[in-house]
Amino acid sequence: MDSPLNSEIESFFDSAPPLNDRAAISEKLKEFIALNSSESGTRRVACVTSGGTTVPLEQRCVRYIDNFSSGHRGAASTEHLIKMGYAVIFLYRRGTCEPYCSSLPDDAFLECFEVTKESAVQVCQPYSEAVKRAIRDHHAAVAGGLLLKLPFTTIFEYLQMLQMIAVSSRSLGPCSMFYLAAAVSDFYVPWKSMAEHKIQSGSGPLDIQLLQVPKMLSVLRKEWAPMAFCISFKLETDAEILLEKADMARKKYGMHAVVANELLSRKEQVVVVTNNGKIPVYRDKTSSDSDVEKPLTKLLVDRHSVYIKDSNT
Amino acid sequence: MDSPLNSEIESFFDSAPPLNDRAAISEKLKEFIALNSSESGTRRVACVTSGGTTVPLEQRCVRYIDNFSSGHRGAASTEHLIKMGYAVIFLYRRGTCEPYCSSLPDDAFLECFEVTKESAVQVCQPYSEAVKRAIRDHHAAVAGGLLLKLPFTTIFEYLQMLQMIAVSSRSLGPCSMFYLAAAVSDFYVPWKSMAEHKIQSGSGPLDIQLLQVPKMLSVLRKEWAPMAFCISFKLETDAEILLEKADMARKKYGMHAVVANELLSRKEQVVVVTNNGKIPVYRDKTSSDSDVEKPLTKLLVDRHSVYIKDSNT
Repeated sequence: MDSPLNSEIESFFDSAPPLNDRAAISEKLKEFIALNSSESGTRRVACVTSGGTTVPLEQRCVRYIDNFSSGHRGAASTEHLIKMGYAVIFLYRRGTCEPYCSSLPDDAFLECFEVTKESAVQVCQPYSEAVKRAIRDHHAAVAGGLLLKLPFTTIFEYLQMLQMIAVSSRSLGPCSMFYLAAAVSDFYVPWKSMAEHKIQSGSGPLDIQLLQVPKMLSVLRKEWAPMAFCISFKLETDAEILLEKADMARKKYGMHAVVANELLSRKEQVVVVTNNGKIPVYRDKTSSDSDVEKPLTKLLVDRHSVYIKDSNT
Repeated sequence: MDSPLNSEIESFFDSAPPLNDRAAISEKLKEFIALNSSESGTRRVACVTSGGTTVPLEQRCVRYIDNFSSGHRGAASTEHLIKMGYAVIFLYRRGTCEPYCSSLPDDAFLECFEVTKESAVQVCQPYSEAVKRAIRDHHAAVAGGLLLKLPFTTIFEYLQMLQMIAVSSRSLGPCSMFYLAAAVSDFYVPWKSMAEHKIQSGSGPLDIQLLQVPKMLSVLRKEWAPMAFCISFKLETDAEILLEKADMARKKYGMHAVVANELLSRKEQVVVVTNNGKIPVYRDKTSSDSDVEKPLTKLLVDRHSVYIKDSNT
C-alpha cells in the first residue's frame, strides 16, 4: 500500500469512526460464506449494495448529506438473483426498500391489512397474492441461507462493511459477484475535522468544505477481491455525458460491466457497458408487473457464467 | 408585509419550486376542517409536524442535506392526541414513522407476518396484539375523519404546506394547535442558484454555500394563525445551552410552549418551557411500553384547555 491512491484510502479508513458490531458482522459473514461453499461445488454469491450512503456533518449527528436512492433497484435485483440460484449478501441503507417488498406499496404495513369483525388480521383483497408471495419468499430465502441482510447508514459504515465482505468472499474466487447499485457519496467531511455538536444557526450563511471520497472500486478489484466479477452503476441526470462517463469508469476501475442509468428513465431502460460494446436493456412493456431488473440481472448472470468458465480454463 | 423578516420570507417562497398537487391538498384540508367544525361545537384540531426536511443541492436532485429524525415523536404524539379527542393533520416526512406504527419494529411488514402451511398469512405470535391494535386503530382514525396524513420531502414543500394548513385552520380559532416536532432545515440553497444537473466529482474538494432559512415561526404566530396554540421543539446535542436556547426561542417567536430535548436523552425526558416556568417531563419507567410522549401530550393538552378557556372569557 504505497501508491498515492492507497495512502488516500488509508487516511479515509484511519479517520473513520470504528464500526459498531464489527465482530458480529464478521461472524455472520463467515457463516454465510461457509454455508454456501462446499466441496461438491460452490454456490455463486452476489454482494448487492443498495440505497444511498450518508455523510454526517456533525459527530453527534443531526445533519447529514444524503444521496437520493429508494433502494428499489438493489432490492428487485436481489430477488431475481436468488431466483437464478445465487446467494445474496444485501448491503443496504437502513430504511430503504428490502427484497420481496419492491412491488408493494411503500407503507405496506398500513395499506395492505385490515382487521375483520371477528378481530382477525387479514390481507386486503387487491394485495392478497402479492403479500403472500412476498412474506413466503422472504422467509424461504432467509431460512434457506440464501439471503443475508446487512444495513448501513453512513459512508464510513458502508465502505468498512464492503471491505469486510470482499475479503470474506475471496475464497469463492470467480463465483463471487459484486453488484454495486448503492448511491455512494462522492464527498465527505473527515471525522476529525467535523464539528462535535450541532452547528448553530443564527450567525449568517454556512460554508461547508467537503473532500472527495477516494474511489474504492480500484482497490476492491485489485486487492480486496481480485477474482470477483464486478459490476458498478453510473447514474447521471444529463444523458449527454452518461455513456462516456460509464465507459471511463469501466476502464479506470477495471469493472467487468458498468450499468449506465439516467435519473428519469432508469426504471424503463439502462445500458450495460462492457469491453465489447454497449447493450441497451429494456423493461418488458407488454407486462405491467415486469421490471428492468429482470432482463438486466439475466444478462449479467450470463456474463458471469462466461467469466467463470474462462477463469477455470 | 414590509419588515425585513417578511421580505426574507417572501423571497424564500418566491424562489421555491411550486408545490405539486396544491389544489388536491387544499381540497383535502378544506374537507377535513369542515368535518371537524360544526355549529354544536368545534373539535380541537392539532397540526403535528414530524420527520426531517431535506435541502436539495441540485434541481434534478441526487444529493441533498437532511436532518436526522425518525419521526417517532410526532407519530406517537399523534396517537395520544387522537386518543384525547383531537383530530390531527399529520404533516410528515415521506418514509418516516407513521402513527400507530411507533411501537412496532421498523420493518414490521417483513418481521411480523408468516405464511401458514395452509397458505394463509398470519401475524407472528409475539406481535399478535400489537399488530391488530395498530391496524385497527389506524383504520378507525382515518375512517372516522380524525387523521389526515400529508407527506413532504423538501423544506420547500414543508413550509408551503404548513402555511396552507395554518391559513385553513384559522377558522378554528383557539381550538387549533400547532405541535411542531419536525426537524426543519436551518440552511438552504435557493432554487435559482442551484446546479441543474448532478454536481460532478473528480475536480477536487467541493464547497457549498448555504443561506439561512428564514424563521417562519413568527409569521405563523402573527399572520398565518394568530389564534392557534403553538408549541415548537428545540433539539440540541449540548445540554449546557439547551434550556437557554429553548427559552430564547419561546420569547422570540411568541410560542406558548417550547419542548427542549437533548439528542441522547430525548426518549426518556424533555423539558417544557413556558412563560411561567420550566416543567420536566419523564417517561414512566415502571412500564416497559410507555413513552415520554404520553405525559408530554397530556401536559400540553391541559395547557391548551386553559388557553381556550382564557380566550373565550
